[in-house]
Amino acid sequence: MRLTALALLLVLPALRADEGMWTFDNLPIKKIQAKYGWAPGQAWLDHVRLAAVRFPGGSGSFVSKDGLVLTNHHVGHHWTQVVSDAQHDYVKNGFVAATRDQEIKVPGLALFTLLEMENVTDQIEKAVPAGADEQAAAKAKAAELAELVKEQGAKTGLDCQPVTLYQGGQVWIYRYKKHTDVRLVMSPEYGVAAFGKDWDNFSWPRHDLDFSLFRVYENGKPYAPAHHLAWTGKGVSYGDLTFTVGHPGNTSRLETLAQMEAKRDVTNPMAIRTLDRMRSSLHAFAALGEEQSRLVSDQLMGIENAYKVVVGETDGLRDKVAMARVAEAEKELRAKVEGDPKLKAAASSSWTKIEEAVAQLKVMAKEASLMGALRSETLGSAVSLHRYATEMQKPAEQRTPQYQDEKAFTALKTRLMAVKPTDAGQESFTLLNVMIGAQQELGAEHAITQMLLGGKTPEAATKELLSGSRLGDAALRKALVEGDPKAILEHSDPALVLARKLSPKLDEIRKRQQGFQSVVSENLTRIAKARFAVYGTSTYPDATFTLRLSYGAVETYPLSGTLAQPFTTFAGLYDRAAAWGPKAEEGSWELPARWVERRDKLNLFTPYNFISSNDIIGGNSGSPVVDKKGELVGLAFDGNIESNAGRYYFDARLNRCLSVDARAIVEALDKVYDAKHLVAELTRKN
Amino acid sequence: MRLTALALLLVLPALRADEGMWTFDNLPIKKIQAKYGWAPGQAWLDHVRLAAVRFPGGSGSFVSKDGLVLTNHHVGHHWTQVVSDAQHDYVKNGFVAATRDQEIKVPGLALFTLLEMENVTDQIEKAVPAGADEQAAAKAKAAELAELVKEQGAKTGLDCQPVTLYQGGQVWIYRYKKHTDVRLVMSPEYGVAAFGKDWDNFSWPRHDLDFSLFRVYENGKPYAPAHHLAWTGKGVSYGDLTFTVGHPGNTSRLETLAQMEAKRDVTNPMAIRTLDRMRSSLHAFAALGEEQSRLVSDQLMGIENAYKVVVGETDGLRDKVAMARVAEAEKELRAKVEGDPKLKAAASSSWTKIEEAVAQLKVMAKEASLMGALRSETLGSAVSLHRYATEMQKPAEQRTPQYQDEKAFTALKTRLMAVKPTDAGQESFTLLNVMIGAQQELGAEHAITQMLLGGKTPEAATKELLSGSRLGDAALRKALVEGDPKAILEHSDPALVLARKLSPKLDEIRKRQQGFQSVVSENLTRIAKARFAVYGTSTYPDATFTLRLSYGAVETYPLSGTLAQPFTTFAGLYDRAAAWGPKAEEGSWELPARWVERRDKLNLFTPYNFISSNDIIGGNSGSPVVDKKGELVGLAFDGNIESNAGRYYFDARLNRCLSVDARAIVEALDKVYDAKHLVAELTRKN
Repeated sequence: MRLTALALLLVLPALRADEGMWTFDNLPIKKIQAKYGWAPGQAWLDHVRLAAVRFPGGSGSFVSKDGLVLTNHHVGHHWTQVVSDAQHDYVKNGFVAATRDQEIKVPGLALFTLLEMENVTDQIEKAVPAGADEQAAAKAKAAELAELVKEQGAKTGLDCQPVTLYQGGQVWIYRYKKHTDVRLVMSPEYGVAAFGKDWDNFSWPRHDLDFSLFRVYENGKPYAPAHHLAWTGKGVSYGDLTFTVGHPGNTSRLETLAQMEAKRDVTNPMAIRTLDRMRSSLHAFAALGEEQSRLVSDQLMGIENAYKVVVGETDGLRDKVAMARVAEAEKELRAKVEGDPKLKAAASSSWTKIEEAVAQLKVMAKEASLMGALRSETLGSAVSLHRYATEMQKPAEQRTPQYQDEKAFTALKTRLMAVKPTDAGQESFTLLNVMIGAQQELGAEHAITQMLLGGKTPEAATKELLSGSRLGDAALRKALVEGDPKAILEHSDPALVLARKLSPKLDEIRKRQQGFQSVVSENLTRIAKARFAVYGTSTYPDATFTLRLSYGAVETYPLSGTLAQPFTTFAGLYDRAAAWGPKAEEGSWELPARWVERRDKLNLFTPYNFISSNDIIGGNSGSPVVDKKGELVGLAFDGNIESNAGRYYFDARLNRCLSVDARAIVEALDKVYDAKHLVAELTRKN
Repeated sequence: MRLTALALLLVLPALRADEGMWTFDNLPIKKIQAKYGWAPGQAWLDHVRLAAVRFPGGSGSFVSKDGLVLTNHHVGHHWTQVVSDAQHDYVKNGFVAATRDQEIKVPGLALFTLLEMENVTDQIEKAVPAGADEQAAAKAKAAELAELVKEQGAKTGLDCQPVTLYQGGQVWIYRYKKHTDVRLVMSPEYGVAAFGKDWDNFSWPRHDLDFSLFRVYENGKPYAPAHHLAWTGKGVSYGDLTFTVGHPGNTSRLETLAQMEAKRDVTNPMAIRTLDRMRSSLHAFAALGEEQSRLVSDQLMGIENAYKVVVGETDGLRDKVAMARVAEAEKELRAKVEGDPKLKAAASSSWTKIEEAVAQLKVMAKEASLMGALRSETLGSAVSLHRYATEMQKPAEQRTPQYQDEKAFTALKTRLMAVKPTDAGQESFTLLNVMIGAQQELGAEHAITQMLLGGKTPEAATKELLSGSRLGDAALRKALVEGDPKAILEHSDPALVLARKLSPKLDEIRKRQQGFQSVVSENLTRIAKARFAVYGTSTYPDATFTLRLSYGAVETYPLSGTLAQPFTTFAGLYDRAAAWGPKAEEGSWELPARWVERRDKLNLFTPYNFISSNDIIGGNSGSPVVDKKGELVGLAFDGNIESNAGRYYFDARLNRCLSVDARAIVEALDKVYDAKHLVAELTRKN
């Protein structure tokens, strides 16, 4: 990549800056039309929006009139695990319901479809009494919004959710239909859905059959959605216009340069080190045996993913060309703010204030990072219990709000009593990690390190704490929470003793951190408001895990000295499996038996995965990729490694969305899974 | 790549630093043995050395007892073009001699095999008379070496060539057998030999059938070499020990940090711009028609290649981790030099002197670069003629040595008279390039730019010069060279008029440049000598286009967020052909018709290309890759893009040698080319 990218760029076709995660009420129709000679109309937009589905943390779409829902295997991973047990590992071995009777109800899974959106900004603003100061105004607006949400919920029977866009520039209520009877229909084996395992995550060329199928039921019968996406007939080609419809989680494209630089130089490198320690210890734990490996596989996948994300982000923040563009945009906005007396008064000093607060946060970054590192169940619950006891010593009216609201207080106590079941081995790895992290980041001489280790080695300190503490005992926890809180403050359990020492120090750090963060946050809102005043809805709001549309095209990018191939095929899948063999790197490129056996049944040159220039980010996983006809041509499942800087900026040269080709899904269902009934349902013409 | 490389590294298997282009007399046997549990013995070494063959600019090997020679398609490209004509384009369409009668003699092609090597360092040193000063010593040594070469040539009948290693630390005479009757036997189509064309050059994963076969004849019969490499039986696997035997062209690994930094910051970026201008204009010329395209295809390929090399080098020079290692090595050597009074006196100040000279060269870099840019045949020959005439005005004894040696003088005059045939269109592109280059690099106000353009646009100036000059007329040239040189100095041909203006300026620049370069060169020799005194033959000498052996293993590297696959297969070739289709990017990934038709005859999962950690560089193209048994398992044809920094340092993390798998060659010969006779000859067991 690197320099070569620059070189290859010279001969690349004209760049297409398909930036933007657009809300459905505000699409750059003219821009799309001008560039692609076609733009969606209202019927098209309504159709794809109403076919879209929100999963927990991801996206999906209705793909049949009988409520069949398509999403990624990795979005469905957790839910497939939920319906698995020791005898039926549907994640590893895959699952196909041969009939509707066999479809498995997934407890706890709820899906949402966005039926209506209403801009309530004016209404909210009107609720502010004349002459109210800023704080009173905010309070009035919040109350009005809560009231509206409640009122609309009661009136429509829909799940109403407030949505703040443009950092407060617009307030909406999105009204969703909530589906709670969702059943697993089909899921391929993990080994082909995530071929190349963690190694291949974010890489391209890719060979992942990253899809799974669920079905929504209502009243015990398949749900009939008003809209579903028709399956493509001929598929998508190089250069074709594509749209993704999904729920990008969050972006920070409006952060200031000072914030991005602090991430690049201080907090991201630290996060990388922390993840690296966690990863190493989980790998070591997984190496102990098959059961240990199963226990942490999900967690490890999350960490490997987070690791690549933060490494990719950091890499992006180090890209001089792209960051110069970010700096340029900031300079332009600052100039416009300076040029407008009202904006100048409101936000001119905000960049400097953020810069100063960020400088302070950089100084205390290592200490602050330890907060999030208290992941040990034992130590974490001890600190929570200690905080509870301390709070209870105060007069009732001085306690934090959580203690003053009956419902919240009950919930808190329930949480404190709930003993999270953890494997003792895993817990010791986690705590050891905290100890080593303190030693390495803060140094042996730091007060926190000395409290944690008590002069011992990290291994000895961990062993002593875990063998001595009885906080994993549910009866003890119950007794502590229901008894006199003073007992907690005097208890001899070594975890509580340690929490007693640590807490004042942790509280002090937290308070300092929150102080600087509130300066950052307040000034960022001021900048955002100024930005909205200058640019309005000519731009798109930062992602908020609400429905967005991105447009783009199937398009190459400079990769490793050449141009990235726009598609892969099943032949590429088998090529890589053959290149590595089933044993290399712990079977990362080993194909499931069914795939080995049925190779010659497949048309090997069926398009499998493809890349496009759509602007997506985490949360978009499972987004349908649709063409001009509104037909489903693909299923977005990842970004390339270069797109990890997408949190901060969109780089048209390099950011690519990775999708499973719709043609591969039916080819596999047909030839590998003998699921002709599903092929028929997906490709049915109505 | 980039940051990710660092990340993935943490979980990579222990690094194997298989650095070194070793001479056959000085192999790190213990190191190889310790690492791989096996090391070559003398018989093995003699065998592979005597089977190795040197091509012009490349390498090869005997692969049958009947003198069959294997090299790369791109090493044979020029020679295949030589025996092609408008009716028979063997480069494009490929060539297979069905019988030996059909093998085509290649005029001008000579191959060399290295029979004997003799270290004559002592003998040369002894030739220095007692008390001789440095200059006298150098002269005496040169005379002695020339005498030895001549004497040995007469005695052995072999082609004897002096070889200076370790920047003067050792002097050898290498004795070669020269083969002048070489015939083309088989060459695949360019479209499969260089699949992905310029785009894929240096990239990985790769799918190039980059081989061709020649046969050496002697007295009209196939030559029977004493040694040839047996074809592998079972092939090579991931992790296997591999050796390359070939002729690395040149490396600059002993340059100082100051030199490398100057390349990184000044001269390489400038070279990139120059190549870029040349490339653009050649592309524009090629776009004019099929014949124009054919005319420049070779040159364009060379430029595209040079472009990627210099971009890759620059990229490598920007790699902070690797460059820190270079700096560390320099620091270590400097410390050792400081610690030894004799070495200190000889070389201590050399680094600073180089640094100062390099600083001066940086200042004049743009002017100096114009020298090499005078590629226009018209302007170049005018400048040469002017120089000749000027020189002839001096008294004979003051002329440069070339004019005082009868033979050299005759050769010079012949060159001056030889009109290089160029297409008028191409020449105008080249000259236009020189004009634009001056304008862009030196600026419109620079004296040279003003002389070149004479106040006109580059286009107008080019047109005027070329339409007015008659230097392309052989009769005129002959008359000028054979007549009174004064006529040249007074001639009204516009190219000669321009040369008259330019020459004093060019001479002045050249003189200044040579002054600084001689400081660099002298001090680099001093450092090299000190280095040899410190480390001796525990290291390997910089490459000198003489026979070397590199060892390594089939090994992955971190690539684009994942691990590079160690092999590709024919399935990968067809995957990429299908992914792009035959039309994309001017058919860069279009397969020849024969390959499309015969796809299903092939075993698609035959290993095709592979990567290994052998330390190679330009000149190694065509090197046989041999295993412990001395059998041929592959054919080196490229380095990955990351290895382009190999000129300056070997980066074990990333440098990889790319080879065609021997199994792919016989599979293709058998299934695609119906060349069963060649398969039989290659795999014959004797």
